[in-house]
Amino acid sequence: MISASIARQASAAAGRRFYSSSATAPVIGFIGLGQMGLPMATNLYTKSRATSPSAPFLVYDVVPQAVTAFTSAHKTSSGGAVQSVDSIAALARQADVIVTMLPTSAHVKQVYMTDLLPNVRPGTLLIDSSTIDPAVSKLVANALIKDAKCEAVDAPVSGGFLGAQAGTLTFMVGGDRKAFERARPLLQHMGKNIVHCGEQVGTGQVAKICNNMILGSTMVAVSEAMNLGVKLGMDPKLLAGIVNSSSGRCWSSDTYNPVPGVMEGVPSARGYEGGFGITLMQKDMGLALAAAESVKAPVPMAAAADNVFKNAMTVDELKKKDMSVVYQWLAGTFTKMMGRK
Amino acid sequence: MISASIARQASAAAGRRFYSSSATAPVIGFIGLGQMGLPMATNLYTKSRATSPSAPFLVYDVVPQAVTAFTSAHKTSSGGAVQSVDSIAALARQADVIVTMLPTSAHVKQVYMTDLLPNVRPGTLLIDSSTIDPAVSKLVANALIKDAKCEAVDAPVSGGFLGAQAGTLTFMVGGDRKAFERARPLLQHMGKNIVHCGEQVGTGQVAKICNNMILGSTMVAVSEAMNLGVKLGMDPKLLAGIVNSSSGRCWSSDTYNPVPGVMEGVPSARGYEGGFGITLMQKDMGLALAAAESVKAPVPMAAAADNVFKNAMTVDELKKKDMSVVYQWLAGTFTKMMGRK
Amino acid sequence: MISASIARQASAAAGRRFYSSSATAPVIGFIGLGQMGLPMATNLYTKSRATSPSAPFLVYDVVPQAVTAFTSAHKTSSGGAVQSVDSIAALARQADVIVTMLPTSAHVKQVYMTDLLPNVRPGTLLIDSSTIDPAVSKLVANALIKDAKCEAVDAPVSGGFLGAQAGTLTFMVGGDRKAFERARPLLQHMGKNIVHCGEQVGTGQVAKICNNMILGSTMVAVSEAMNLGVKLGMDPKLLAGIVNSSSGRCWSSDTYNPVPGVMEGVPSARGYEGGFGITLMQKDMGLALAAAESVKAPVPMAAAADNVFKNAMTVDELKKKDMSVVYQWLAGTFTKMMGRK
Amino acid sequence: MISASIARQASAAAGRRFYSSSATAPVIGFIGLGQMGLPMATNLYTKSRATSPSAPFLVYDVVPQAVTAFTSAHKTSSGGAVQSVDSIAALARQADVIVTMLPTSAHVKQVYMTDLLPNVRPGTLLIDSSTIDPAVSKLVANALIKDAKCEAVDAPVSGGFLGAQAGTLTFMVGGDRKAFERARPLLQHMGKNIVHCGEQVGTGQVAKICNNMILGSTMVAVSEAMNLGVKLGMDPKLLAGIVNSSSGRCWSSDTYNPVPGVMEGVPSARGYEGGFGITLMQKDMGLALAAAESVKAPVPMAAAADNVFKNAMTVDELKKKDMSVVYQWLAGTFTKMMGRK
Repeated sequence: MISASIARQASAAAGRRFYSSSATAPVIGFIGLGQMGLPMATNLYTKSRATSPSAPFLVYDVVPQAVTAFTSAHKTSSGGAVQSVDSIAALARQADVIVTMLPTSAHVKQVYMTDLLPNVRPGTLLIDSSTIDPAVSKLVANALIKDAKCEAVDAPVSGGFLGAQAGTLTFMVGGDRKAFERARPLLQHMGKNIVHCGEQVGTGQVAKICNNMILGSTMVAVSEAMNLGVKLGMDPKLLAGIVNSSSGRCWSSDTYNPVPGVMEGVPSARGYEGGFGITLMQKDMGLALAAAESVKAPVPMAAAADNVFKNAMTVDELKKKDMSVVYQWLAGTFTKMMGRK
Repeated sequence: MISASIARQASAAAGRRFYSSSATAPVIGFIGLGQMGLPMATNLYTKSRATSPSAPFLVYDVVPQAVTAFTSAHKTSSGGAVQSVDSIAALARQADVIVTMLPTSAHVKQVYMTDLLPNVRPGTLLIDSSTIDPAVSKLVANALIKDAKCEAVDAPVSGGFLGAQAGTLTFMVGGDRKAFERARPLLQHMGKNIVHCGEQVGTGQVAKICNNMILGSTMVAVSEAMNLGVKLGMDPKLLAGIVNSSSGRCWSSDTYNPVPGVMEGVPSARGYEGGFGITLMQKDMGLALAAAESVKAPVPMAAAADNVFKNAMTVDELKKKDMSVVYQWLAGTFTKMMGRK
Repeated sequence: MISASIARQASAAAGRRFYSSSATAPVIGFIGLGQMGLPMATNLYTKSRATSPSAPFLVYDVVPQAVTAFTSAHKTSSGGAVQSVDSIAALARQADVIVTMLPTSAHVKQVYMTDLLPNVRPGTLLIDSSTIDPAVSKLVANALIKDAKCEAVDAPVSGGFLGAQAGTLTFMVGGDRKAFERARPLLQHMGKNIVHCGEQVGTGQVAKICNNMILGSTMVAVSEAMNLGVKLGMDPKLLAGIVNSSSGRCWSSDTYNPVPGVMEGVPSARGYEGGFGITLMQKDMGLALAAAESVKAPVPMAAAADNVFKNAMTVDELKKKDMSVVYQWLAGTFTKMMGRK
Repeated sequence: MISASIARQASAAAGRRFYSSSATAPVIGFIGLGQMGLPMATNLYTKSRATSPSAPFLVYDVVPQAVTAFTSAHKTSSGGAVQSVDSIAALARQADVIVTMLPTSAHVKQVYMTDLLPNVRPGTLLIDSSTIDPAVSKLVANALIKDAKCEAVDAPVSGGFLGAQAGTLTFMVGGDRKAFERARPLLQHMGKNIVHCGEQVGTGQVAKICNNMILGSTMVAVSEAMNLGVKLGMDPKLLAGIVNSSSGRCWSSDTYNPVPGVMEGVPSARGYEGGFGITLMQKDMGLALAAAESVKAPVPMAAAADNVFKNAMTVDELKKKDMSVVYQWLAGTFTKMMGRK
């Protein structure tokens, strides 16, 4: 692997003629093979083979096993183009496009400022799909754009693990039009909707944060209203039907209703397993609140919802559940639910 | 008018053969000719003429001018079937079906317990379209059903003044199936969607309350998120588009967006004039909170939204506006908005 | 008992010379011998014997056993002045002063409007110590003052069951100065601080409600701050000490701290037994929110606190505890606490 | 100035015998001569002259005028011991004790990690009086302790500008007992209460944050309750008196009541001028919420209060006022108040 890496560097030094001479075959580097990153990288690798069957595809993760799993799964295909690298620096020195999928703002800052900045080549396109503080997105992108002559976009996703597997994610992309257009074909290998959110890097994060804070608020609002209706004697399915055809209509009610028995195929229909974990939902609420603090914007609803999520998360069993479990929390039926399992 | 009333009573005493002998021509009484009641009564009167051109149509309001306006508008039509009555008692003694559209729980209690209960005839169908405390709906209906052998439903509406005029209201109806089926054709004269919410009187109120508390919560949630997005540099129209095709999607965003410039034909596009007044929205939040208190259901989101509405309503200019003006309140632009006018 | 009652009535009809001829010996009637009413009535009876050893003392409760318990406990003393009556009407016809201690606004309305209003004699002083909606206090008092020529005050208490037993309650009294001065000596038999809150009946309720909504808010605020401090590594006792000598100082922290180990002699030191039950605290929050709704006053803090209490009350075990158990709720330690018992 | 600095460095290199040979005369460095820092440094300088009349006292601020103002004010006194330095590095190389008073976590991080860490001498005591994120306090202190063999405490203050001037601040100090004892005599020159909050650096911040979040919550809670009471017809002074002698008692009511006319000598008595600015209060709420997010502690009250402060701060005129101006915000009287000026 190392010799391959050295060869790559030599070739890079030689003008990178072989790998990137044509626009159709950029060398792709993917950093972060976690729960979301792994299926995303898999789709990106597989689908990019159609146009560039032999272009190198470099992968890195702090957990070596994650890398090994990916490389061994794809080793036999297409002439061995999948390569693990032993450092982000090595990846940075070879890649034309780098996709990052990391858990927190701190990770992104570290990877971009310490590992990528000194090692990327001018002209590299950086796509960060992590969901983080928009200010950090802007900060690291500007550093890479100014100091390393790169192009950069932030491109957080919605659609969850299932969307990542199916390649149906929505990407919310912030960055100038040119960088966006360059990123788009790659993002289309991993997602279905690729939305340009603004010329500034970070607007992708802003769009995601604003959407998800509404999501969190509506989920708690629907949960409390359904619980109230049930306590006042209404059939929940009937109530949901009325709300869904009226002005209370929202995704949390008509697509992801939190009350068991109202819909099929949603987490509430299967003991709140799977779906969008309450800890992930609350993480996004936390990002929204931090963003609101940064511009002193009042967000009383997001704050109230955040505290309901946080309060429910004090119970260990609920922490592992889908976010819609807040219905059980508000209804006071979570203890019974926990006992039932 | 009085002699007519006496004649009606005589006829009533004689078995009511003339007016109500056939199921197709019930005598209708309508109590409450306010902003909503007037257009509803107008539609009910006009459309019921098709099947029962000469059946009496009795109207009552505490404001005599409201009655005069209605009767004079319809006097010439259809052989003078419109009749004003000088008391609810008189109306009760003659009507086969009574529709009430009153402002508060206290009014409904007064009208039902003091005026209707001692005067209605057995078999009368009572339809209360007021938006009130579900417990009061249940209480008065049960009194009328038990003690006066009547049938009763609660049937609050959504759709506002424009829906009342256009006859496109949604009626949320609580009561047993038989009473519901009997009320349905009359409600269809005033509305488009007639939804049966449950066998218990009061479930119509519950459905409306639950829907509207979600509406109030989503309106504030959308407002705060849009404000945050704008403050963080996003174009509001673009942001709304993203939310509307994602999991933050809701009526308050995709049909009634509170940010000027995002949509046309909504209150935010015309200085928050018209629409669903913030005081009416807050009234419904108050009903929801009272209902929640009655069963000790936690409703943190509705409570937070209610307080935003209440806080905004401390400013006189905002009190006259559509509920979506909370966007301006949260954004701190309401002072500028007020100055602009 | 009945014959005594008849005798009383006869004597009343005869001008009531014997019992109430002197200002020092009013005939007292006490309605409501519940958890609070019983010790209050006991103190009032016992202490009023000093000045009027033989004045009749009439008691009524809907639960006959409560009456029997009281009368038999005091039968032998002072020449049998304690009398049960078989109806509120009978009590009303004989008493010079009537004290009521009832659970809800609805009870007070019923007792005052249906039972007292047609039966009290002019000049009777009515003291309502129930904690209820201030608007109801005002309504019933005005009816009795106007239509029955009585005097009336509202006089809700703080101090709880222990204060009622010890005779150390605080009475918050609303009503004109003359009625207040007339009520004061009797209230001093049951309490220590007798505070005049305003010339209008109902201001006693307002004072209590305003105090208790601050109490509820500070209890949740202290609980969440103590929990945060502990989670961030601080010793709770040290933290409480700092808060108590700084600007966070409040009764909920320095007198009733919710964290076990910080103080002795408070509910948190004994598994949250005794004290001021969370359901009673929440009832007062509900009254505060209803009062706020009546004048459209924004109360975001009381609303947030109310929902924390309500949410905690969904767990049956917590419902029986002191209000300071919200600390365990917010800390997520209530499950462990429940298991420990 | 520069030559003096060079002389200091030479002397420092020579073992620092002259200046720091005795424990009674540490060389003090003070960084940050802002609104709080200036009076604190003034007290520290003046009072430390009693025991060490000729020990150098070094000051630094990013604004040169702030430094000049301080040095010229004290130049003539005590043989010229006040010295400005041209960099934090220079200060660090000479001081035995360094006090920092900086506006944000970012400033502290920058000053400690970039400027102090490479330049301080082993054994230096670092006292950070800034109010910042406790995690940053811990982080920078640990770096200085481990990597530069220093001692460090965090020591945020309460008491405001007036307390800083009068030397009556409260210092909440986190750090091991030895460092605390070494810092204590210097802190006593600037404050009255010096409280040891825990062995860990950062516990000072935690104590301050926990106290101030209760303060913010009680201020809004008192404001909303006073407004409700007034709207329901109570005299605010009477109401405050009742609350202050009952279970609603708190600093925000009995020492800093937000309603004009209730107390003298508080901001509400003088148009909300002076006092503790609403932006500073909200800054502390933001720190509390961020700390709560870091450990996922639910803080519904602080969140609700924070949003009331933020919402009020959208109005420019209110932004310059004392935090207790939220009373006017909730009462809807802020527009009139603004007009009155």
